[in-house]
Amino acid sequence: MVFFIIGLGLGDHRDITVKGFEAVKTCKEIYLESYTSILGINKLQLQEFYGKEVIEADRECCETGIDQILENVSKDPQNNYAFLVVGDPFCATTHTDLFLRAIKLGIKVEVIHNASIINAIGCTGLQVYRFGETVSVPFFTEKWKPYSFYPKIKANLDHNLHTLVLLDIKVKEISEENLARGKKIYEAPRFMSTQIAVEQIIESDKQLGLNAIDEKTKCFGVARVGFETQKIVSGFLHEFLDIEMGPPLHSFVICAKELHPIEEEMFQFYRNNQQKID
Amino acid sequence: MVFFIIGLGLGDHRDITVKGFEAVKTCKEIYLESYTSILGINKLQLQEFYGKEVIEADRECCETGIDQILENVSKDPQNNYAFLVVGDPFCATTHTDLFLRAIKLGIKVEVIHNASIINAIGCTGLQVYRFGETVSVPFFTEKWKPYSFYPKIKANLDHNLHTLVLLDIKVKEISEENLARGKKIYEAPRFMSTQIAVEQIIESDKQLGLNAIDEKTKCFGVARVGFETQKIVSGFLHEFLDIEMGPPLHSFVICAKELHPIEEEMFQFYRNNQQKID
Repeated sequence: MVFFIIGLGLGDHRDITVKGFEAVKTCKEIYLESYTSILGINKLQLQEFYGKEVIEADRECCETGIDQILENVSKDPQNNYAFLVVGDPFCATTHTDLFLRAIKLGIKVEVIHNASIINAIGCTGLQVYRFGETVSVPFFTEKWKPYSFYPKIKANLDHNLHTLVLLDIKVKEISEENLARGKKIYEAPRFMSTQIAVEQIIESDKQLGLNAIDEKTKCFGVARVGFETQKIVSGFLHEFLDIEMGPPLHSFVICAKELHPIEEEMFQFYRNNQQKID
Repeated sequence: MVFFIIGLGLGDHRDITVKGFEAVKTCKEIYLESYTSILGINKLQLQEFYGKEVIEADRECCETGIDQILENVSKDPQNNYAFLVVGDPFCATTHTDLFLRAIKLGIKVEVIHNASIINAIGCTGLQVYRFGETVSVPFFTEKWKPYSFYPKIKANLDHNLHTLVLLDIKVKEISEENLARGKKIYEAPRFMSTQIAVEQIIESDKQLGLNAIDEKTKCFGVARVGFETQKIVSGFLHEFLDIEMGPPLHSFVICAKELHPIEEEMFQFYRNNQQKID
């Protein structure tokens, strides 16, 4: 019996590895993690491709139901199980936690890696070795404006490093109002756009008085990396206030102050080709 | 006609994605980049799996022969071609250069992403978001000891970030002696072990007088990530002088000063399980 934790990569059903696909076909039950990222296709398309049922594991399931699933797995040594994760299995802490819990129950775990935005961001032409700490930008609200991600961007700029900026995803959230009333009513999913992210980045810079960015700060907006509709746009920070990247997921990069020659060439390339390339 | 640049991932032939595998099957010629990394299998096994010939593209080919290949591709709009890269296509600058050259010749390029050590290093349980700049450690010689990678490790430690340390690979190198004599005799391939890397790291710290590391510095050695024989070992820096990680490729991680609780748990886990896990 093996409990597979399988990365699905970034695009559609065919971005799973051959190894992962073969593993899935041996499994009794297949869980799909569905709240830290999204695929370009839905559960039904995955089911059709695998020829098997896929059980969606939302946030609630991952946080509170997972022990029950692992308990069942550990009691069924005859069968394989799979837990599918968009991107790479270890790119979210919650899946590392899953790995540890399974091991503790004596379950044989096998991890199958895949691309994640962490390495696929190289599609911009920026060298993946020159990225500093990754930051996540949360949706600001009127009352809650956590600027704490911003000094990390400044530190990266000070060290002449690029910053990968991950944008907030709100899936299966309950509004404060409904939460207070004990009503389990989910809000519509929300995915932060590069436009909102840039607004919040500029606001953070002003509020903290750091002056780390200006109109000459080079940036990349990327959307739907690995999807057929992938879009990569380069430009100066303030230009992104007006650039529409289309449907989710979006990510953003704030470039180091100096670009290497090939990085500069790629920046110019995507500045002149603001459309889908590959 | 499409020129595919396809990531093979980190393990064996079955780590290619289904999308990549399907693309390969449509190609007239398939080139395999074979000098920035290594796969767990050889060209013959790939050929058997694809049912097609695979042409090895060594350093010489990539640096000087590639223009001729692209020229041929651009003149043959009826057929698809593939260039296979271990890991992810954009994790080495030379492949970004290939991408740009192809585009300039008007060739339609399609990139198929995969896992690379940049994201798969999450297998240690360390959060991929908390890594600072990646460093590469070159083989020191008696005359040439470039310590320039070391201040980057210190900067990461100062910011409480992990450092991924990539270790030198020497494939198809010609010795200085033979180079001076104009003899094209290749040395045997050499792959740096974590033991050599740690020796050089300790030497660099001493020579630069930075005192950034000590006997309490937590580290991970990883070998053959994604292979069936993958090995992950955690321990304190100096312990790695005696830890044998086996065959290549090796990579190394110097942990941030403070670990998050799940990171600490994974550190303890691999400290107590110094053997192949998944």
